[in-house]
Amino acid sequence: LLLGPGDDAALWRPRAGFDTALTCDALVEGVHFDLKLISPWELGARTAAASLSDLAAMGAQPRAALLSLSLPARLARGAFFEAFNDGANAWLSAFGATMAGGDLCASPGPVFADLSLLGEVERGRALLRSGARPGDLLYCTGTLGDSAAGLAALRSPRRVAASARVWLAKRHLTPVPRVPAGRLLATRRWAHACIDISDGLSSEAWHLSRESGVLIEISAAAVPISAAARAAASAFRRDPLEWALGGGEDYELLFSSPPGLAAKIERELPRLTGVSATCVGRVRRGKGVLLVGSGRARRLPESGFDHFKG
Amino acid sequence: LLLGPGDDAALWRPRAGFDTALTCDALVEGVHFDLKLISPWELGARTAAASLSDLAAMGAQPRAALLSLSLPARLARGAFFEAFNDGANAWLSAFGATMAGGDLCASPGPVFADLSLLGEVERGRALLRSGARPGDLLYCTGTLGDSAAGLAALRSPRRVAASARVWLAKRHLTPVPRVPAGRLLATRRWAHACIDISDGLSSEAWHLSRESGVLIEISAAAVPISAAARAAASAFRRDPLEWALGGGEDYELLFSSPPGLAAKIERELPRLTGVSATCVGRVRRGKGVLLVGSGRARRLPESGFDHFKG
Repeated sequence: LLLGPGDDAALWRPRAGFDTALTCDALVEGVHFDLKLISPWELGARTAAASLSDLAAMGAQPRAALLSLSLPARLARGAFFEAFNDGANAWLSAFGATMAGGDLCASPGPVFADLSLLGEVERGRALLRSGARPGDLLYCTGTLGDSAAGLAALRSPRRVAASARVWLAKRHLTPVPRVPAGRLLATRRWAHACIDISDGLSSEAWHLSRESGVLIEISAAAVPISAAARAAASAFRRDPLEWALGGGEDYELLFSSPPGLAAKIERELPRLTGVSATCVGRVRRGKGVLLVGSGRARRLPESGFDHFKG
Repeated sequence: LLLGPGDDAALWRPRAGFDTALTCDALVEGVHFDLKLISPWELGARTAAASLSDLAAMGAQPRAALLSLSLPARLARGAFFEAFNDGANAWLSAFGATMAGGDLCASPGPVFADLSLLGEVERGRALLRSGARPGDLLYCTGTLGDSAAGLAALRSPRRVAASARVWLAKRHLTPVPRVPAGRLLATRRWAHACIDISDGLSSEAWHLSRESGVLIEISAAAVPISAAARAAASAFRRDPLEWALGGGEDYELLFSSPPGLAAKIERELPRLTGVSATCVGRVRRGKGVLLVGSGRARRLPESGFDHFKG
């Protein structure tokens, strides 16, 4: 970064041999978060996590961020902005990025935060959604459904044991984007296609299917679900698989790799990043998303999370 | 642009020998605009204009944009988004940029739009706020105060003659960022410092003063004010100079240049860009902003436009 906040724009000097990846994510009070459940610091971290996760899914190294924050008058003069900014900066700096600029303004309505993020990836190595090939194995990092379980636990804290509740809440409030895993997949060419799981496994699998022109087969029994999410599901009489498929905001990576790389993915990726990688299915000729292994196979519907529905 | 909307991030391949400039601007309903006075198409163009103008002030060539748009349910399914997007794309493409991605989501409150913009500028040639030197002449492009006059005319249309009203409204609703002028100043090294006039001449002059460590002297009689703004000011019994100094959102450029370049600035810049350049003052040793030539000299206050005030 040549020039940070304070001028008309930030200046960044791109490195030779690298492409620039660019993304933004907006979080709106009352749609994406509830200020009764999340602190300003956590909200800053979570806003950064959403954009960091997009770059992780491209295999890019995050570098420079711009923040637009619109705050109602009751929050504007207080500690809210400082805490939000601290949280965002903590998450950005943990993954190699710095705040390059931004725009703070008043809101006559809810809190609105939008974080744009620039990163760099070795020329031609970016991980796209369109590269999955029949025969690939399908992997995800970490565990799925924790964020949905965490939100349920935050809303009804008495129903979930404290140990599970605290861990799940953290997974929901301050998700850790899988930047090192994405970098590894891109630089070592270990993945044909990659996407981050922000709207649930089902919806992301559909994106891979559409963009790559393939059928995605998910094995229900293979989906990694944490003991805490299982405990919460049991307390709420829910099926934790539904949280994994449709819950969203886990910010794990979903990627496809040739079967010859299975040993590397399953052993080296966890060893080098500290994050597990689980084979959850495979890529076949065809289209759509098929869930197998829980009774008879069923096709998952195309509809993902839609902010304007209902 | 290697990859546009539809993946986790957009991909941009930087050109060798160029730095990347990065900015964002947010517009919030009820703070920056009133949907009774501006159409969705115009709002899209104006949102793009704000970020384009930031890059113009850096001397950068706009290239790729990301749009976050948060819409209340009543607008979400209608033609609003299409019209907004058309307006934004019209402005972006007119200045050499394309929409690379974005995020459309629901709002439980007002319309919120944030546009991030990436551009490129020849390595080391970016125009900063910090380069003004004592002895420089101070210039602005175009005319100042039109946007404030346009807003007044939109609010009380009967008080302003139709010809002036239509022209001023256009200046307010769909400002034309001075990208070609900024590019010329940067590539020919015609300016020591540059800033765009988004918050009024007084506030921007203060930025130059602070960042460059100089005194900015503005000659009241030299400030270019259009005949239309003068007519509107007369109708509203206002001083048009106050609109120029404090009105904001004119999106003209304010820059300082060595006096030896005066002929180039005053003749070639208009000839090559179609935009006028007027000497409005000079840069001196000292600090602050001094207004001279309207009776006795007076120091202009440091406070610019503050969204959280009052």
